[in-house]
Amino acid sequence: MTFADATAVTENGDHYLSEIHDGWDVAGNANGGYLMALGARAMSSAAGRDHPVALNAHFLAPGRTGPVTVHPRVVREGGRFTTVSASLRAGDRHLVELRGRFVSLERVAGPVRAAATPPELPPPEDCLQMTPERGSPSLMGKVDLRLHPEDAGFARGEPTGRPLFRGWLRFHGEEVDAFGLILAADVFPPTVFNANLPIAWAPTLEMTAHVRGQPEPGWLRCRFSTRFITGGLMEEDGEIWDASGRLVAQSRQLALVPRPRT
Amino acid sequence: MTFADATAVTENGDHYLSEIHDGWDVAGNANGGYLMALGARAMSSAAGRDHPVALNAHFLAPGRTGPVTVHPRVVREGGRFTTVSASLRAGDRHLVELRGRFVSLERVAGPVRAAATPPELPPPEDCLQMTPERGSPSLMGKVDLRLHPEDAGFARGEPTGRPLFRGWLRFHGEEVDAFGLILAADVFPPTVFNANLPIAWAPTLEMTAHVRGQPEPGWLRCRFSTRFITGGLMEEDGEIWDASGRLVAQSRQLALVPRPRT
Repeated sequence: MTFADATAVTENGDHYLSEIHDGWDVAGNANGGYLMALGARAMSSAAGRDHPVALNAHFLAPGRTGPVTVHPRVVREGGRFTTVSASLRAGDRHLVELRGRFVSLERVAGPVRAAATPPELPPPEDCLQMTPERGSPSLMGKVDLRLHPEDAGFARGEPTGRPLFRGWLRFHGEEVDAFGLILAADVFPPTVFNANLPIAWAPTLEMTAHVRGQPEPGWLRCRFSTRFITGGLMEEDGEIWDASGRLVAQSRQLALVPRPRT
Repeated sequence: MTFADATAVTENGDHYLSEIHDGWDVAGNANGGYLMALGARAMSSAAGRDHPVALNAHFLAPGRTGPVTVHPRVVREGGRFTTVSASLRAGDRHLVELRGRFVSLERVAGPVRAAATPPELPPPEDCLQMTPERGSPSLMGKVDLRLHPEDAGFARGEPTGRPLFRGWLRFHGEEVDAFGLILAADVFPPTVFNANLPIAWAPTLEMTAHVRGQPEPGWLRCRFSTRFITGGLMEEDGEIWDASGRLVAQSRQLALVPRPRT
């Protein structure tokens, strides 16, 4: 099942019907970016605009495989953007609260000024492919994710000590579009896995994705890093570059850092 | 009038009454961080929790001096956090749509791991104080903002070419609290003023502030930068450090880059 099919929504009066499909999870909990993308499809439809440009999510409860509904509400329709709020629910369980601005995105064109370059990566075949067969979550069967070998030590129980992951990403059998970028922004292992801290889990409170343009077909280059673990919280910042070398998305999530057991 | 007074709210049934006070504006439009802080006070009251920890804003229309109302809706009350949505309105004009998580924040304590240090700044008295008397917006009469001399050339019509501002910030006559950090995250000149681009205005679509802890009393050190101007959009990332050298807030806003006239 493609990502497009796995995030499809059907209009049903004032809300949309959809389903959390099997396999887009880590240990039974649906990936946050997957839930955001699914919700964004309903919001985009309600807005009558093709793409999310800025999407915020507050995660309230874990999503499990099964039917869900999306309840969008158009907040304001402007000349170029439409702002939409939405709730994603499983029955009466409130899973995610979303808000975003929607637009018809062009491929990234016109002047570009960037003070950062895409991460340098060895060719995909020289990177570590994350697969369920090698012990990665089932989600890794849905995407083709290749980690930079320098960041892959955590998979052998040897975290690098730097909360950083770099790598290639594409989907199996389809190109990544603006909605796919939202999944891409949440599909790498949590940076904290490389942090040499006694933390195996850092639940996300809030995530914001900015889609800066539609990606060209091909591999995406991705970089996720954490600079501050402080006050019981950590951020994870993501950058996604397309095959033409242009930045197509940025993301930031704020996660709780559980207090280590003493 | 202190910041606390200028963002005070009064409960009135299912909503809150407040006022956009004179002087918290740039060219007649109320500062976005000021509007967010004002909204957050009503949301915090509705949540029964002291502080915002993650606050998203979508800016829909400019705010002018005069009465406003805040309409909060508690989305979910958890054991530690309460999630609240809110609309900020002037009559029937919808100014800002907000969503945030509220908590009782401690001063930043416990383990801290940071891969970045506060910006190095000359002493405040050797920095450029932005004041209305010297041509800065009236907002600069409300805060004490001292720009790093290396970033201050734009004020003489000599942008540095780097979309970066560093400097000190404090309020006149009161310490900056968690709400003040939200204003602080939006009170420096737009980074694009130093970018050597024919752009004098970049309206913010969306802004997210993460409050990582309550600041210690004293000067804040601030850093705002833009790395990507692409696809007709730019981000502006902020970091705010307290007098003890701890990161207390991060912010990111997404702004439209108007197409230069040709």
